[in-house]
Amino acid sequence: MSKPLNPIDALLKKTSTWLEDSGPMPSIVISSRIRLARNLDKYPFAVRTDDESMLEVMNVVRDGAAHSKMLKKAHFVDMDEISEIDRQFLVERHLVSREHMQNPEFRAVIIGDGEAVSVMVNEEDHLRIQSMESGLNLRNAWTTINRLDDELAETLEFAFTPKWGYLTCCPTNTGTGMRASVMLHLPALVMQKQINKILHTITKLGLAARGLYGEGTEATGNFFQISNQVTLGRHEEELIENIERILNQVIEHEQNAREALLTQNRAQLEDRIWRAYGIMGNARTVSSAEALDLLSAIRLGVDMELMSDLDRTTLNELFLFCQPAHLQKLEGSALSPKERDMKRAELIRQRIGKT
Amino acid sequence: MSKPLNPIDALLKKTSTWLEDSGPMPSIVISSRIRLARNLDKYPFAVRTDDESMLEVMNVVRDGAAHSKMLKKAHFVDMDEISEIDRQFLVERHLVSREHMQNPEFRAVIIGDGEAVSVMVNEEDHLRIQSMESGLNLRNAWTTINRLDDELAETLEFAFTPKWGYLTCCPTNTGTGMRASVMLHLPALVMQKQINKILHTITKLGLAARGLYGEGTEATGNFFQISNQVTLGRHEEELIENIERILNQVIEHEQNAREALLTQNRAQLEDRIWRAYGIMGNARTVSSAEALDLLSAIRLGVDMELMSDLDRTTLNELFLFCQPAHLQKLEGSALSPKERDMKRAELIRQRIGKT
Repeated sequence: MSKPLNPIDALLKKTSTWLEDSGPMPSIVISSRIRLARNLDKYPFAVRTDDESMLEVMNVVRDGAAHSKMLKKAHFVDMDEISEIDRQFLVERHLVSREHMQNPEFRAVIIGDGEAVSVMVNEEDHLRIQSMESGLNLRNAWTTINRLDDELAETLEFAFTPKWGYLTCCPTNTGTGMRASVMLHLPALVMQKQINKILHTITKLGLAARGLYGEGTEATGNFFQISNQVTLGRHEEELIENIERILNQVIEHEQNAREALLTQNRAQLEDRIWRAYGIMGNARTVSSAEALDLLSAIRLGVDMELMSDLDRTTLNELFLFCQPAHLQKLEGSALSPKERDMKRAELIRQRIGKT
Repeated sequence: MSKPLNPIDALLKKTSTWLEDSGPMPSIVISSRIRLARNLDKYPFAVRTDDESMLEVMNVVRDGAAHSKMLKKAHFVDMDEISEIDRQFLVERHLVSREHMQNPEFRAVIIGDGEAVSVMVNEEDHLRIQSMESGLNLRNAWTTINRLDDELAETLEFAFTPKWGYLTCCPTNTGTGMRASVMLHLPALVMQKQINKILHTITKLGLAARGLYGEGTEATGNFFQISNQVTLGRHEEELIENIERILNQVIEHEQNAREALLTQNRAQLEDRIWRAYGIMGNARTVSSAEALDLLSAIRLGVDMELMSDLDRTTLNELFLFCQPAHLQKLEGSALSPKERDMKRAELIRQRIGKT
């Protein structure tokens, strides 16, 4: 009998379903995500909790999840029982937050099949339920997470008042407890120097723009996460409609900027894209930040049909596997930053069909 | 009957023989050149001359050259009768100086078969005889130019006194009238930041270090021209021996620097070389300066046997044909700087086997 795989190692075998390039608007929208903050009525919130209470929350949520059909094939991962590289790996997969990685004690994550749904346990709230979809698909993500929320509510008693809605550790999440976010690739708006104006407008409309890994991280490689700020006083569907309306405008601006690049600066654009391709096929050492920049340039080339040698699926895989913990998991051992840069370059050369 | 080719167009068909990569020390020394300054005894020197006298010098030298066996297949090119692009083309081939190009009236150049020997007429001196060889081969260049000088002296009476030797327009050339120079590729000394120390030492030993196109031009792409300063008071063979002795030391330093790069920084070195290769195979627009940098990196890769996809012959051809006038001659029409950068990128992609 073969030894059963560690659940993290099993994840390594494939790309997350939300990176499958199967959703709407794949040329601009990488993925859509909805997260619900929930707390158990009978246990103190994170700010006032203790070890014993946290341990109980973990067990109660674990038992509750065991009754959910949607989590039937899910893995329960105790953050304290896995290695630091595995924890980092989960951050890179957007399955846990950086805070969750940094404080693993009495914290867990439940990972659904294909990573489409997951639940962080004892993060800022007792439960942070998450649903991810490929492309621009907040509605599907909402349908899925709403169903999972209902299933969990059958066994778990969530803190809720008719006046305030769901109660959360931080008051900014109270109400629906919902945060919807979308990962966008906006290279043309960056090249045409229109991005700051767009992000400024988004903020005034009640949305937030962040880097790849959420709050406090910078946008790299022209990838941006846009999410709602308001969670209170509206229905979830209204909030989603509002985000989608604004996103559609951002997408239109990006499309116009791409058209403008093509008519005004085609030569420079092609040069940039093909140089990125040439570097990726030949470099012997590539940093994380450079990899994102190169992937961004090549993705733009593929999206604009200026390059037919590659597809977005390969780029999405690289997007995921070029990250530090992914590289170390692939290698099967810890690597220094310098070794990672070499391993990253090697992986990129292999995946884009050169050696 | 086909129309006879313009002599400049004939040159375009092939690479100069001195770029054939056939001489000694090809991994560090591109080419060796000897130039002799000669003046006709009976005509005023350039500083005191007039149009009529210059025209007579042109005719006298032309007739004299017609008697030389070595110049039997040579072309006499009146600088004033060719286009500006053709004049620039001759500079790029190292057949005429920039000054000769800029003031074409009553100036000419005699170009021997394969460009191994040539004679500028009415440059700073009435004759500037030149001999070029591939690799480190000043002795062959000397044998050739000495023979040509003798042949020309059979019909032309050169200004010479037993005390001062050959008289020249500028006193710094008086004596032998000889300048020997060698074009070196010293990328490892540049990368290891030892180049300034080496050039400083060279200068103290009576040699001069310059850029690709002689006086007043900067070294680009790690290519340097090293030549003697002293022309008076010594035999030509002594001068050449002295340069060769110093050059051998420079070459040894470059070899040591390459070894050091390989043992200390192999990963970065390979990265640099392969990136250059990737960019050359894919870029859509490349400037002159960048082309030299890329060619320098790839040449180093070939020389150090880190790259087997290319040979020095191809690199030498690109070295020549990436220059502005060469590109325009290839295209058959004048090109704006932006168009040249695109044409250059296209040529590079073609020559290194990618499209």
